[in-house]
Amino acid sequence: APKKLLILPGDGIGPEIMHEARRIMDWMAQARGVRFDISEDLVGGASLAVHGQPITQQVIDAARAADAVLFGSVGDPKWASAGFDRRPEIAILKLRQELGLFANLRPAKVFDSLVDASTLKPDVIRGLDIMIVRETVGGIYFGTPRGIETLPDGTRRGINTEVYTTAEIERVARVAFDLARKRDNRVCSVEKCNVMESGLLWKEVVTDLHAREYSDVELSHMLADNCAMQMVRNPRQFDVIVTGNLFGDLLSDLASMLTGSLGMLPSATLGAKGEDGRTPALYEPIHGSAPDIAGQGKANPLAQILSLAMLLRYSFDMQEDAAMIEQAVSNVLDRGLRTPDIMSAGKTEVNTAGMGEAVVAE
Amino acid sequence: APKKLLILPGDGIGPEIMHEARRIMDWMAQARGVRFDISEDLVGGASLAVHGQPITQQVIDAARAADAVLFGSVGDPKWASAGFDRRPEIAILKLRQELGLFANLRPAKVFDSLVDASTLKPDVIRGLDIMIVRETVGGIYFGTPRGIETLPDGTRRGINTEVYTTAEIERVARVAFDLARKRDNRVCSVEKCNVMESGLLWKEVVTDLHAREYSDVELSHMLADNCAMQMVRNPRQFDVIVTGNLFGDLLSDLASMLTGSLGMLPSATLGAKGEDGRTPALYEPIHGSAPDIAGQGKANPLAQILSLAMLLRYSFDMQEDAAMIEQAVSNVLDRGLRTPDIMSAGKTEVNTAGMGEAVVAE
Ligand SMILES: CC(C)[C@H](C(=O)O)[C@@H](O)C(=O)O
Ligand SMILES: CC(C)[C@H](C(=O)O)[C@@H](O)C(=O)O
Repeated sequence: APKKLLILPGDGIGPEIMHEARRIMDWMAQARGVRFDISEDLVGGASLAVHGQPITQQVIDAARAADAVLFGSVGDPKWASAGFDRRPEIAILKLRQELGLFANLRPAKVFDSLVDASTLKPDVIRGLDIMIVRETVGGIYFGTPRGIETLPDGTRRGINTEVYTTAEIERVARVAFDLARKRDNRVCSVEKCNVMESGLLWKEVVTDLHAREYSDVELSHMLADNCAMQMVRNPRQFDVIVTGNLFGDLLSDLASMLTGSLGMLPSATLGAKGEDGRTPALYEPIHGSAPDIAGQGKANPLAQILSLAMLLRYSFDMQEDAAMIEQAVSNVLDRGLRTPDIMSAGKTEVNTAGMGEAVVAE
Repeated sequence: APKKLLILPGDGIGPEIMHEARRIMDWMAQARGVRFDISEDLVGGASLAVHGQPITQQVIDAARAADAVLFGSVGDPKWASAGFDRRPEIAILKLRQELGLFANLRPAKVFDSLVDASTLKPDVIRGLDIMIVRETVGGIYFGTPRGIETLPDGTRRGINTEVYTTAEIERVARVAFDLARKRDNRVCSVEKCNVMESGLLWKEVVTDLHAREYSDVELSHMLADNCAMQMVRNPRQFDVIVTGNLFGDLLSDLASMLTGSLGMLPSATLGAKGEDGRTPALYEPIHGSAPDIAGQGKANPLAQILSLAMLLRYSFDMQEDAAMIEQAVSNVLDRGLRTPDIMSAGKTEVNTAGMGEAVVAE
């Protein structure tokens, strides 16, 4: 039976860039006879507009039934003041939680042909290749108690709780160590153990797991504030970074921006292997929905296309097809084609569709 | 009566760089007849070694009685595994909490003569001048419940609680708005209101205060992950940033590193004006204790010296003396003198004492 692929374009530039990823799938079907069982649905603001909620139970069930989810991006200023429970972002938070997608893999990689796109000096970032493994179903994003309460004297208090258990820390650390073994074999674990007990436990659990099962991997520890600095000072010191939900949110965005080309970076979020042998997985560009340029043909579809490649590689074990797409992207860049976000002097500017077509042509 | 100044050199390079700051004070006494009532005491690892605790009640009382505290830095790998309650860092956390030092002011400023020291391209950071106002006595650093608990099944859970009240948010926002009025009149408030209710309350309170009392100041809001990115993409878009304790920790370190010269940056942490009209205040370099280079004469004393200038300016209203010190530092840099951390081709390398002497000479 063909693999089940659920496509969730979402908001803003999501639909445009997803359109280009579908172009690649169409080509794969035509040229290589690869068939998927594809369905598509609404999330984020797009779902709010139709269903009054950022994601329906039906979409969650479809995601659970799929072999992999290809996600665009959510977020729409239209819903900015719609209340905490009606944020488009809930779509992605719910998918993570309901499917148990606990490990967000975010590569920050500098393409040689785009080394000048960064605000950092080329010498500092040439060849940069960091993999951030961010925990995504625990920590302060989901801990309780949470909320805003009003005290008798009228004072209001906003509360969130950071909670991590040994098991939650261990499983994400395992993903990081396993990945490191296929890379440069180094893991840096990041927390604030000097002020937070949850960080102290994090450090202990990672250290123990390392001693028990991964002593062949080089492990270091770094405070989150120092990590933010080191990323700017000398980002190439890192191979794999593993960290909690909140630090991972900031640090992975920071790492991406070092590359200067957010529009190029895919990500994967993986769950635990189920009894049926399947690993729930969602793939998405690391950039947001960019409402300011939506519908103008300016968006860079490459992160979405590379997310598809990542999906083929990790979820469908289609290494050859994944490599083919990645090579095509690399060739297109070498030929000098650029969407506006990565445009520089002497290159050829193309729009979203132009870029998608060029990748297909390659 | 002369102003009471408490000096706490701390660990690592703290004592060396404080020595150079004292040189300036000696010169002020000699050349300008400025007298302070100076006392000095132990904090951090230095205090742990003598008193078995990172800060004694006596030092806290002395800090409370002082008109201002000049702090070096704390942190010593010797005490890394001494247990959560015996971390050198507790010294600074306790001082913040006991003296109610709720607003940490951290300027990230690029000196023209050091524009090449950054890993960012000169075009991106030339003239950079950001002021980060970080809340320092609330949030997840101090919220309860906190700790590590063991569940009946042996699972351990690390817990920390982020709490912010309307009053805590308002007073730090006020500091930011007041500062903005003396600068470029723009405040960017940073939180994660899309996932945290404490951030949602933060945003509401800042927005309300702005509407009520500061509508002449330009206010914007940014998510913390986006802020980390924007700092790398285009840091000069910011004037004053106001944010909570944890985000402020990461973002202020990140902002400092953009300048490429941590050894140059001072900071102030201020409390609320007391009934006696005094505002508790602590001044310290933003860099850490750098144990790796301690005792080698390599440390850059300028952040400590500029912290003294900041102290004179904010706490003692000695504008002229502060400006004099700042000008001397600027002249020394223009003359090409550099400690190893900011050394570059064609400049003259000096050691810690050499730099201190040069500032005095100017
Ligand atoms: C959309 C938002 C809730 C999300 C997060 O904060 O996790 C995003 O920033 C991300 O990093 O995937
Ligand atoms: C020393 C440490 C507790 C402190 C903090 O995390 O607040 C430091 O990093 C700082 O930024 O002043």
